[in-house]
Amino acid sequence: MSILSPDQLAALEGQGIELPSWAFGNSGTRFKVFQTAGTPRDPFEKISDAAQVNKYTALAPSVALHIPWDVVDDFAALRKHAEDLGVELGTINSNTFQDDDYKFGALTHEDAAVRRKAIDHHLRCIDVMDETGSRDLKIWLAEGSNYPGQADLRGRQDRLHDSLQEIYARIGDHQRLVLEYKFFEPAFYHTDVPDWGTSYVQVAALGEKAMVCLDTGHHAPGTNIEFIVMQLLRLGRLGSFDFNSRFYADDDLIVGSADPFQLFRILAEVIRGGGLNNPDVAFMLDQCHNVESKIQGQMRSVLNVQEMTARALLIDKDALTAAQKSGDVLVAHEVYMDAFSTDVRPALAEWRESRGLPANPLAAFRASGYEQQVAEERVGGVQASWGA
Amino acid sequence: MSILSPDQLAALEGQGIELPSWAFGNSGTRFKVFQTAGTPRDPFEKISDAAQVNKYTALAPSVALHIPWDVVDDFAALRKHAEDLGVELGTINSNTFQDDDYKFGALTHEDAAVRRKAIDHHLRCIDVMDETGSRDLKIWLAEGSNYPGQADLRGRQDRLHDSLQEIYARIGDHQRLVLEYKFFEPAFYHTDVPDWGTSYVQVAALGEKAMVCLDTGHHAPGTNIEFIVMQLLRLGRLGSFDFNSRFYADDDLIVGSADPFQLFRILAEVIRGGGLNNPDVAFMLDQCHNVESKIQGQMRSVLNVQEMTARALLIDKDALTAAQKSGDVLVAHEVYMDAFSTDVRPALAEWRESRGLPANPLAAFRASGYEQQVAEERVGGVQASWGA
Amino acid sequence: MSILSPDQLAALEGQGIELPSWAFGNSGTRFKVFQTAGTPRDPFEKISDAAQVNKYTALAPSVALHIPWDVVDDFAALRKHAEDLGVELGTINSNTFQDDDYKFGALTHEDAAVRRKAIDHHLRCIDVMDETGSRDLKIWLAEGSNYPGQADLRGRQDRLHDSLQEIYARIGDHQRLVLEYKFFEPAFYHTDVPDWGTSYVQVAALGEKAMVCLDTGHHAPGTNIEFIVMQLLRLGRLGSFDFNSRFYADDDLIVGSADPFQLFRILAEVIRGGGLNNPDVAFMLDQCHNVESKIQGQMRSVLNVQEMTARALLIDKDALTAAQKSGDVLVAHEVYMDAFSTDVRPALAEWRESRGLPANPLAAFRASGYEQQVAEERVGGVQASWGA
Amino acid sequence: MSILSPDQLAALEGQGIELPSWAFGNSGTRFKVFQTAGTPRDPFEKISDAAQVNKYTALAPSVALHIPWDVVDDFAALRKHAEDLGVELGTINSNTFQDDDYKFGALTHEDAAVRRKAIDHHLRCIDVMDETGSRDLKIWLAEGSNYPGQADLRGRQDRLHDSLQEIYARIGDHQRLVLEYKFFEPAFYHTDVPDWGTSYVQVAALGEKAMVCLDTGHHAPGTNIEFIVMQLLRLGRLGSFDFNSRFYADDDLIVGSADPFQLFRILAEVIRGGGLNNPDVAFMLDQCHNVESKIQGQMRSVLNVQEMTARALLIDKDALTAAQKSGDVLVAHEVYMDAFSTDVRPALAEWRESRGLPANPLAAFRASGYEQQVAEERVGGVQASWGA
Repeated sequence: MSILSPDQLAALEGQGIELPSWAFGNSGTRFKVFQTAGTPRDPFEKISDAAQVNKYTALAPSVALHIPWDVVDDFAALRKHAEDLGVELGTINSNTFQDDDYKFGALTHEDAAVRRKAIDHHLRCIDVMDETGSRDLKIWLAEGSNYPGQADLRGRQDRLHDSLQEIYARIGDHQRLVLEYKFFEPAFYHTDVPDWGTSYVQVAALGEKAMVCLDTGHHAPGTNIEFIVMQLLRLGRLGSFDFNSRFYADDDLIVGSADPFQLFRILAEVIRGGGLNNPDVAFMLDQCHNVESKIQGQMRSVLNVQEMTARALLIDKDALTAAQKSGDVLVAHEVYMDAFSTDVRPALAEWRESRGLPANPLAAFRASGYEQQVAEERVGGVQASWGA
Repeated sequence: MSILSPDQLAALEGQGIELPSWAFGNSGTRFKVFQTAGTPRDPFEKISDAAQVNKYTALAPSVALHIPWDVVDDFAALRKHAEDLGVELGTINSNTFQDDDYKFGALTHEDAAVRRKAIDHHLRCIDVMDETGSRDLKIWLAEGSNYPGQADLRGRQDRLHDSLQEIYARIGDHQRLVLEYKFFEPAFYHTDVPDWGTSYVQVAALGEKAMVCLDTGHHAPGTNIEFIVMQLLRLGRLGSFDFNSRFYADDDLIVGSADPFQLFRILAEVIRGGGLNNPDVAFMLDQCHNVESKIQGQMRSVLNVQEMTARALLIDKDALTAAQKSGDVLVAHEVYMDAFSTDVRPALAEWRESRGLPANPLAAFRASGYEQQVAEERVGGVQASWGA
Repeated sequence: MSILSPDQLAALEGQGIELPSWAFGNSGTRFKVFQTAGTPRDPFEKISDAAQVNKYTALAPSVALHIPWDVVDDFAALRKHAEDLGVELGTINSNTFQDDDYKFGALTHEDAAVRRKAIDHHLRCIDVMDETGSRDLKIWLAEGSNYPGQADLRGRQDRLHDSLQEIYARIGDHQRLVLEYKFFEPAFYHTDVPDWGTSYVQVAALGEKAMVCLDTGHHAPGTNIEFIVMQLLRLGRLGSFDFNSRFYADDDLIVGSADPFQLFRILAEVIRGGGLNNPDVAFMLDQCHNVESKIQGQMRSVLNVQEMTARALLIDKDALTAAQKSGDVLVAHEVYMDAFSTDVRPALAEWRESRGLPANPLAAFRASGYEQQVAEERVGGVQASWGA
Repeated sequence: MSILSPDQLAALEGQGIELPSWAFGNSGTRFKVFQTAGTPRDPFEKISDAAQVNKYTALAPSVALHIPWDVVDDFAALRKHAEDLGVELGTINSNTFQDDDYKFGALTHEDAAVRRKAIDHHLRCIDVMDETGSRDLKIWLAEGSNYPGQADLRGRQDRLHDSLQEIYARIGDHQRLVLEYKFFEPAFYHTDVPDWGTSYVQVAALGEKAMVCLDTGHHAPGTNIEFIVMQLLRLGRLGSFDFNSRFYADDDLIVGSADPFQLFRILAEVIRGGGLNNPDVAFMLDQCHNVESKIQGQMRSVLNVQEMTARALLIDKDALTAAQKSGDVLVAHEVYMDAFSTDVRPALAEWRESRGLPANPLAAFRASGYEQQVAEERVGGVQASWGA
């Protein structure tokens, strides 16, 4: 008998984690971007790789696109390609950080012409969403400044509001605008959306279809992220997660690899607040695989999220509540840790097999020869990357 | 001719920084609270010491009280004592962290009886405000938890709202409720109001008379505090500052001593956002003088705020705006730094003398013999402290 | 069959973690020290409580003393009391932070008379060691400064060396001097031994019997502690651990409660470097139980160390080395995480029972009624605390 | 009469700050490297730009090279080019982070063949030093790992020692090996030389000609850098500074732009420890000018170092020492801050003019038309950059 109850397994069955197309291209640091044989050269190949993750895990039913990195002539064809491989096209991510015009900002720029260009880019993204059937427009802004005095913080914040309002006006009835925040990088003195508070007040000023995106790597050292999860769920504004993990800055490592207990706490708060299997709260990865296999890295990531979700589902809520109410610190902590300390891997493996999936998805994928095959086939062309 | 223009001097003339009565009592760390001869034994003596700061600087026209530390039988007498010495009684600070009942929270406690007690304490504080003529009830909450699982984050947040609502209902027409946030300490895993975002959403849910208090020492490492100043002014919710400075945690050092440039940037943003000489934005100190003279420490602090305000007033706004608009990073930064690099001390000294104040307030105070006098007079009794 | 091999169980059997006597007294923050019924009033009662931890876990065979907190008239009697309860007296901790003379330093003080007093205190501690049979003199220095300019960093470092040399000269042949480092607190601008590098160069200048103490809570945010463990073992200078855990500053929480994976990584590096069951490397706790049961808190702590040691012993070294050598990042990480993800609690419980210990030490202790008993018995007197 | 005494001016006259050739090429973040008209295409053009900084400031008499970025066929010609422009070739920086072979390390790699290649690269760098007349080989290692378990920390540290020893053996009598440390980046879990302690023990194991390089941006948040300056000077191992500034990570901003007071404190400690105008302690910049003019950015940087050195020279040492000895915290702090608060810019401008330099070097350079000229001339070719 599994340590996971039928209800818990049902909750896990509903879980889907969107993959970022860009995780399958090359990425790196300002010091070096390493190339790897077999890296996709175009969005179709990225989708193919992403579909492998879903094939072995049934955890990754959709793929987020990044515009313009993933611009194709025929989005319908890309959509069909994805559907043929059993996945869907998901969130559309805008990009206003790689054009020379955006050196000093995009939606916040002093120059109305640059703002116009950046707004138009977002409107074009909404056009793409209409073609791909995507629900969410995710906006991460690289804007900010490097030196005190360089920028007018207040003017930029006001212009940000105006620009977002214009974009929001074009968001369809069944679409959403999701605004990400980030503590720092690439700007080093200030960023225009540095924290959940700023993202919240900006989206709250737009309307009901505007939400906050929480990237787990975008906080100051020591920040209690599960508290923010709780607060955004409470406010009804947690639109999505960008999962990854970090030791120092925005390291974009495999989620769960740096601090598994933090991931457990975040998922426990998601469950507590009704965010699991709630369509309002999208789960996504946003990671870089600079030195490791990209497909395997994505696979391990979704498995980590699944594993920690399973552990969090094991929390004995009644016992926890009783201990919390009585002020028994150690028993409450113990109940919580008991769930975290439980090894759910055997139960998950067994359950996977019962659903026709490999018990060990990573081993099965490694044995499939897919990586060797694409390394041989994908010769010539230019490997996809951020193109920084 | 002064480097400070008449307009700038006029702006400085309006500046007042409230002193915390508790800065004149002993404070320390969990390792040791050092005692000093001459430390006040009661609120009257604290007010006397605070009045010295104002006497020599004309910068500290009011004194904040802490309840119950500053409870007296006759607040009218305390008020008269203050007024006789040329200062006013200011903000009333509640204290719900030193009673055994509050071990696991006060306004957020699981037990309705404890919440009742904590709410009643705040209502009593409002009574005191009526007696002292104070405008602001400042609430800093020590509540939180030390261990994951110990507390129900969400339930506590909801209860916090309910408790605040009950307190807010008693706030008078000309009074305000000001809610402080703090990253951590004394709770080590979560605090119930950890960031400006949480304080903002809590006070916004109350009404127009509820504001946020920004303590400059209550943020994660690396936080851009002037950005928060900008945002809260933009939102119309910056109620007050608790000034101090820090290298690591909430060190509560003399404001401007750890990073004078940060203080400059904060004040530049206050001026930019219309927060200077704006009655809505109260300036206060919240510091500990563990190893240095307390009166002198307070004096240096208000002088530091004045000095950095003067420097920030020197920013050539037109030149700055022009450089910002043209994207000239280095000229914009240079204009900003030119103001910071200017030594305003001689001009301030001269201006002080023109107003009948000592050019060097600290030297004048040291020469006055006040510290020696109170050290001799204040014999016996129990020195004031936090009583932790 | 246990998932832990006989060799692994043998390694665990040798594990002993010294308890700090002061963990059984009251502690808190600068805001409040809560009192608890049953708290020991003297060193004898502290030892009694500590012996409970060992009775139920067989993991805590010795108790560290803090001088002067644990000064008794007759150390031989205290030693006998401990031995009667099955534990030994361990490390002697000096205290040069609670005397008014030490406001501006002890071993580093500008005034030779104060340094003399502080050195003499340490010589007295060595006398105590001779009486208690203790091996280690552990020196944690609270000295430093709060304000730039306050102190002469260099002169203090030189005086520190001179003072330590004088103390070291009195260390017996079978004794050791162990120097702890700490990033900050109670000093807020500089501490005289802030990092492992400083502790290392100071003890290396003394001689072979001087070692470094690594307190897991005494580092800057983000510090890779297991790297330091590796380096100090490599240099032959890792004298002891002070275990605890933290989210922000030196929170002194239960070890393993904030980041269990970090504890695993530290213990994995201890094992890798030959530090397990190595008499040169003492394991100790240094924690505060501000809001939770102290005896239970200590018990949970030693069990956490044991559990993570067991997990770390499970690392498949051959597979790990092979993956590391081949540059297979994900397989190496997987091998490492497989050990961490394994639930060793059932195997440990079974093994405990086989040794005549309770499967669940905390449950057994709670059921024993000890806490209720001492709460009833220990009436009157002054509860032990740090006496800050 | 200048506020700077003849002795102080003499001390300033001796100051030289080496410029990094790579600061004149394009740099950026992983998100984008912006191109600028006029950016050098080869080492000769970089030297030309660097010479401009020295021409207007007389503060930058030498230029550091980066191998292989600055490899030329004829180093004698490059040297002559530099000397014709009034500057010298300085430190040689090795680069073992941009070759695919170095993906998992260079001097620490598991594979002896990769280590051999990396060692040989350093030997080639020493050959270059012989050609350029450079004294210092500066080694910054990008090696480390991203995931727990990925790497054998201890084995790497031992191999690092072996590799360095082989390089050190080739260091000439009048040459030095200088080892830099860095907290993180590009590796995100561990770096092989993360802190001053590791750099110190590694160079101490080599011999007298091996020194530590302190990059001001390579520490954990909150680190007291001036303490490390003090300690390394005390140990006789402070070989050089890489100056820059940061708010969050290794932002590589203009030195003095983020926290001018920190730069003041560092320079005060340099002076205190005899490091000013001491040939053993090289001053260098290591910065990125991602969004601002590179030549002007370098110019502002050396001027910032000069300005803060001048302020630090103003510290009244006798008054400071007296206050420190007497334990007068506030007076000691005041003496220290008085120097920092003094505006030395007018005195420096006057002194510059007396030496035939422009009073305002940046204004003079801007007026010179050099930037416009090179923007027009440098057409075609590939702009220099890190080539990541």
